[in-house]
Amino acid sequence: MLQVNGERLWASLMEMAQVGATARGGVRRLALTDEDRRSRDLFSHWCRDAGMSVSVDQVGNVFARRAGLDAEQAPVLIGSHLDTQPEGGRFDGVYGVLAGLELVRALNDAGVTTRKPIDIVSWTNEEGARFTPAMLGSAVFTGATPLAEALAKSDVQGITLADALDSSGYRGMRAATGNTVDAYFEVHIEQGPVLENNGTTIGVVTGGQAIRWLDVTLTGVAAHAGTTPMRYRKDAFFACAQIAAELEQIVEQYAPRGLITIGQVDIPNSSRNTIAGQIAFTVDLRHPDDAQLDAMERDLRGACARVAQARGVNLQVSTYWSSPATPFDPVCVALVAQAVEALGYSHERIVSGAGHDAIHLARHCPSAMVFIPCVDGLSHNEAEDALPDDVTRGANVLLGAVLARAGLIGRSSPGE
Amino acid sequence: MLQVNGERLWASLMEMAQVGATARGGVRRLALTDEDRRSRDLFSHWCRDAGMSVSVDQVGNVFARRAGLDAEQAPVLIGSHLDTQPEGGRFDGVYGVLAGLELVRALNDAGVTTRKPIDIVSWTNEEGARFTPAMLGSAVFTGATPLAEALAKSDVQGITLADALDSSGYRGMRAATGNTVDAYFEVHIEQGPVLENNGTTIGVVTGGQAIRWLDVTLTGVAAHAGTTPMRYRKDAFFACAQIAAELEQIVEQYAPRGLITIGQVDIPNSSRNTIAGQIAFTVDLRHPDDAQLDAMERDLRGACARVAQARGVNLQVSTYWSSPATPFDPVCVALVAQAVEALGYSHERIVSGAGHDAIHLARHCPSAMVFIPCVDGLSHNEAEDALPDDVTRGANVLLGAVLARAGLIGRSSPGE
Repeated sequence: MLQVNGERLWASLMEMAQVGATARGGVRRLALTDEDRRSRDLFSHWCRDAGMSVSVDQVGNVFARRAGLDAEQAPVLIGSHLDTQPEGGRFDGVYGVLAGLELVRALNDAGVTTRKPIDIVSWTNEEGARFTPAMLGSAVFTGATPLAEALAKSDVQGITLADALDSSGYRGMRAATGNTVDAYFEVHIEQGPVLENNGTTIGVVTGGQAIRWLDVTLTGVAAHAGTTPMRYRKDAFFACAQIAAELEQIVEQYAPRGLITIGQVDIPNSSRNTIAGQIAFTVDLRHPDDAQLDAMERDLRGACARVAQARGVNLQVSTYWSSPATPFDPVCVALVAQAVEALGYSHERIVSGAGHDAIHLARHCPSAMVFIPCVDGLSHNEAEDALPDDVTRGANVLLGAVLARAGLIGRSSPGE
Repeated sequence: MLQVNGERLWASLMEMAQVGATARGGVRRLALTDEDRRSRDLFSHWCRDAGMSVSVDQVGNVFARRAGLDAEQAPVLIGSHLDTQPEGGRFDGVYGVLAGLELVRALNDAGVTTRKPIDIVSWTNEEGARFTPAMLGSAVFTGATPLAEALAKSDVQGITLADALDSSGYRGMRAATGNTVDAYFEVHIEQGPVLENNGTTIGVVTGGQAIRWLDVTLTGVAAHAGTTPMRYRKDAFFACAQIAAELEQIVEQYAPRGLITIGQVDIPNSSRNTIAGQIAFTVDLRHPDDAQLDAMERDLRGACARVAQARGVNLQVSTYWSSPATPFDPVCVALVAQAVEALGYSHERIVSGAGHDAIHLARHCPSAMVFIPCVDGLSHNEAEDALPDDVTRGANVLLGAVLARAGLIGRSSPGE
């Protein structure tokens, strides 16, 4: 069975990790900065060395093509991203890009060709750490965000994406939209602890979960901590605490797949000896099933309303952002499952908890993802790590699924 | 029975409220600013008009004396403060000072004298809004804070108290410490809702409650809101919420006098889609009884430790500040009670929830306070208000208690 060269893939990952390397072993390659440009240059250089043709589209997405036997066929696309968080790691994104490159190198070594072309893509600004929102390059590619809207986005210094593309030299001529893709595959570290805790090597990703972001504001009465008896208080903080305690109970009814996070809490004009007159907090709700997420939100709003009324505090709940569940293509998911079974690796079906370019692509073409474990579930962190064997195995699964989709034609390596 | 002229007192309060008046009906007279200087000038002018001699001590406390028959006797001191919060009201502090002045004016009208001298004082920087800590003038007077330490305190612009005293012209020659006082009386708005809600006119204040300020930090693990199953989380915010919910239950065991406030909450590096890795919050605990406050703190620490251990989060609890309960002098409190009973006003015994200069004085000489209701319990607020009848009655109670202590000698008004 055709397999990748794990040592070569690891060496490329470590060489790429030098571009924007931080003192603590992480990587800082914000989108379209000089570090990102150097990583794009290196990737393009490696692709040309592997005999691929490189092109750049209007939003800076970099494509490298390995021709197929049938030039009329839409390509099988493999990708992820080279940009990182400000204190990012050596695997998030770059692994999916360089696994695609290693797959092509392995095909070259074996002297084989495929019926459909194979394209590798590095998407622009996946992290959202420089330009908001995240996954901007794949959003434009799939038509979710108009090109002009994306080009007008600016970073905290007021530099637009258009200007950043121009200064980096990565504003390409290729049309960013209207491209036909046969299928999209992305391999990525899990960015969570599930595979590692279960001792599983490969996650066969079945889709992205539904996400809803709510903003809650409770308004009571600010008053003096020393002169206001408890029974006269309308303390917004204690109302929030009771709601949070109830929400934690509620989410147990949706275990293990329902998730709730209260990440930000703000008491305006807070003071140590003043009763909180108002509190604002965020809620992040997630579930793989839209109907279950709707039910979670109903329960949440019910708990908020009940507590607010009982305490005589004013309640406002608004939806900041909502994203439906995104199932991946059953055929592509099956190709991933077949590949991992053929290789004999332990595996489980898993839902992607984080956002990925593949979530956009799934609304555009048949798509699937492969997850490998990351050490301690850590990501978006300079200590982010993955084991070499897992990195190799994930790339082998990608290779198996892509070849099944692209059609392996002949094997006539000069060495054989 | 000798009584004050309520209309004159109200007119003086309203005239003084013009000094630093704000557009929304409040007052802004930060300590030793030009507004504060003008209020001191006006107060001094009124006192001299009432035949009193005015002196200023080394920390800017302004004293006005009405001589008694026996010049060897220590004075009965009446006071409060003329400075305000940045968005303060028309009664907090100034009422206690001008009630003293009205008392003297009423004695003058009646042509009576007292055995002991009567001094009125306006303390420097009671609010703590410009220089920290609050109640600085009375702290120096009673020896709680050394003069040199107070003079070196600086505001946010780096101006020291010494410089501010010099530029306002209120750095006096009189010794700030070592003064003998026969007794101290202070009348003040309650700054809470108890008297108003109980329909009581006068609060006979028995002392100041014990206060303890704690800092609590819970450290869990920050992680991705989308990829981390609930069972693997160490969410510092939900730990805080459970602790808060338990503390609210615990304080009910100390009802109605135990108070708990969580006024400030901070999640460092918070983000909507990141599980709170750490949370820091403040706790303000109060109870009139030191032993009960100790018990409350023990229960609080127990709840924190139990929840932290059950959730596997790290706990740190430290004491930021602690102030013991300060009982007022039983004899002085009895004089207040007798005065209010003689006047026939409704009254109740009450503990002061807020800090007052009288708390410092109580550690220096026999002291007591009189409270009157304030509308909706509001204070430190431009909407702070009090009813004219209550203002008059509080001053009458003050008059009765002070005369009983100072010794009313003769009544030979020219008008009689």
